[in-house]
Amino acid sequence: MGKYGEDTKLIYELQDQGGELLALRYDLTVPFARYLAMNKVTNMKRYHVAKVYRRDNPATTRGRYREFYQCDFDIAGQFDPMIPDAECLKIVHEILSDLQLGDFIIKVNDRRILNGVFAVCGVPESKFIPACSTVDKLDKVPWEEVRSEMVGEKGLSPEAADRIGEYVQLHGEHHGLVPLALFWAGDGRCRAHARLWVGWGSGAGGGRYDGLVGMFDPKGRKVPCVGVSIGIERIFSILEQRLEASGEKLRTTETQVLVATPQKHLLPARLKLISELWDAGIKAEMLYKKDPKLLKQLQYCEDTGIPLAAIVGEQELADGVVKLRDVATREQVDIPREKLIDEIRRRLEP
Amino acid sequence: MGKYGEDTKLIYELQDQGGELLALRYDLTVPFARYLAMNKVTNMKRYHVAKVYRRDNPATTRGRYREFYQCDFDIAGQFDPMIPDAECLKIVHEILSDLQLGDFIIKVNDRRILNGVFAVCGVPESKFIPACSTVDKLDKVPWEEVRSEMVGEKGLSPEAADRIGEYVQLHGEHHGLVPLALFWAGDGRCRAHARLWVGWGSGAGGGRYDGLVGMFDPKGRKVPCVGVSIGIERIFSILEQRLEASGEKLRTTETQVLVATPQKHLLPARLKLISELWDAGIKAEMLYKKDPKLLKQLQYCEDTGIPLAAIVGEQELADGVVKLRDVATREQVDIPREKLIDEIRRRLEP
Repeated sequence: MGKYGEDTKLIYELQDQGGELLALRYDLTVPFARYLAMNKVTNMKRYHVAKVYRRDNPATTRGRYREFYQCDFDIAGQFDPMIPDAECLKIVHEILSDLQLGDFIIKVNDRRILNGVFAVCGVPESKFIPACSTVDKLDKVPWEEVRSEMVGEKGLSPEAADRIGEYVQLHGEHHGLVPLALFWAGDGRCRAHARLWVGWGSGAGGGRYDGLVGMFDPKGRKVPCVGVSIGIERIFSILEQRLEASGEKLRTTETQVLVATPQKHLLPARLKLISELWDAGIKAEMLYKKDPKLLKQLQYCEDTGIPLAAIVGEQELADGVVKLRDVATREQVDIPREKLIDEIRRRLEP
Repeated sequence: MGKYGEDTKLIYELQDQGGELLALRYDLTVPFARYLAMNKVTNMKRYHVAKVYRRDNPATTRGRYREFYQCDFDIAGQFDPMIPDAECLKIVHEILSDLQLGDFIIKVNDRRILNGVFAVCGVPESKFIPACSTVDKLDKVPWEEVRSEMVGEKGLSPEAADRIGEYVQLHGEHHGLVPLALFWAGDGRCRAHARLWVGWGSGAGGGRYDGLVGMFDPKGRKVPCVGVSIGIERIFSILEQRLEASGEKLRTTETQVLVATPQKHLLPARLKLISELWDAGIKAEMLYKKDPKLLKQLQYCEDTGIPLAAIVGEQELADGVVKLRDVATREQVDIPREKLIDEIRRRLEP
């Protein structure tokens, strides 16, 4: 209890028909920490892609859902400083680069720097955390609104708020020390020793949580952890937009070969050939019809972007060959059956 | 509603703190059918691996949990008879064969044959479904118990039950027509046109459900479907038992290369080399220590079964080489840095 701070209200608390109390998983981090503590695991590296639930007002246009995926990568264990942290950064960099999402900036911050900024601005230590979660909203709302929340809701002095405002005005102009200090990852959760924070719009975020495992251990034994989370829905929506803008057609299957027949009564021949291709690890499909027309089969290749058709007719069976057709160029050649797999693999090479 | 027959009581019906009614997913089949109907999809082939929930008394020793995975494969659409059904059988055969689980029997049945058997035995049509789900229990309890449930709970006449008993006695002796007729897949759900059923212990099961999509469509438009489900927990427990019996040690990571250093102050060299290996798609690891002892690094390889160690020391850096060590034989050779990736790939070939 109490692991989620003021976000606790977003947890789905459920009661089943027998009165048993249940809750839907809010994130993957706290369950991971609980797993480590309960199984006395002191050393683990893992990724986890799974659904989590937030009892929030959904805003699907902004990619905010009540049920959504988290993709987490975490390293737990007592290691030398910053080495696992660097691996987390490397992985985020690799994922975002490989996906060719365009330019991105990974911002790194140490909570103690941000706390230092707050201290210099005259914020009392008891208000560091509320001040953090308010500064965090700068992604979404202008400074004036943030300032009024600081003074009104969070009870900061107007002077302190204005001094924070001076730092905030610098945000985005210098990519040096100051904006780093003002970056605060999205979820507003209070982690005891949060040190490193990584963020990319809302596409990825993470940090260190050295105290969480100890909260679940009866003797309070700590297992320092660091991890990152990839916002897969957000990334999908960026990829979709880019694809739409490019006008490129996205294939919905990965099928490489359609197994086709030109005459009737050849279903067994199709089944036999497709089975050979499947056994060789080739992604093959056939129409689920007893006697489909050849034209229909070739049309299906063109509609779905299948690059090759392997055609067996009576003549091909008699000759021990398969007609291999390039769907785009419409060229077709007879390939001896025993060389078919190699030829298909050769043609599918990138 | 009413898609799960008498299993409805096993659904987790939940009410959140705001009084909203929710339920936990009971299986993947009904949600798939609902998806097809609501999105007017008339043609789809997909697999789905995800968690489902049963409000049941868990029996973990028998692999029965309240939260468990289902792995489903389904083909939806109006096709020629038995072609997609055959693909489902083929896939179950492939999975069970590839996993080397040992011998298995896939039993196939047509509900109408079973209904025919019941009719011949004098069971009135209204009792076909209760008789089915009782016969199904023969996997777990002896015939006498099944018979007493038929007569007592389900209201079959003792004569009809005895005649069913005659067929049941044949079960397991002839792998021909009769035992086929008596096989009934495990979940006891009532599907309108269940025709083909596949089962393997409780390791896999499935069948045809031609009427389910229509139940979700406002105009009752039908989309015939067939699918199979793999019992992954059950299969895992079989694989674990076999592994334990063989005394073989299972590696818990797939790491192929440990990047190691023999002297101090070489963390940057390790980071650079591991990054090159990662970029080449090689599964590499390093210890998260600033200056680990070489012996500790090599010991880690032996403990975790990592086959290769790539060692960079001051001398190797000066010479532009990497020392590649075979952990099992302890042989090590200097490889020019630019040839390292190729050499590692060559050594990792099966």
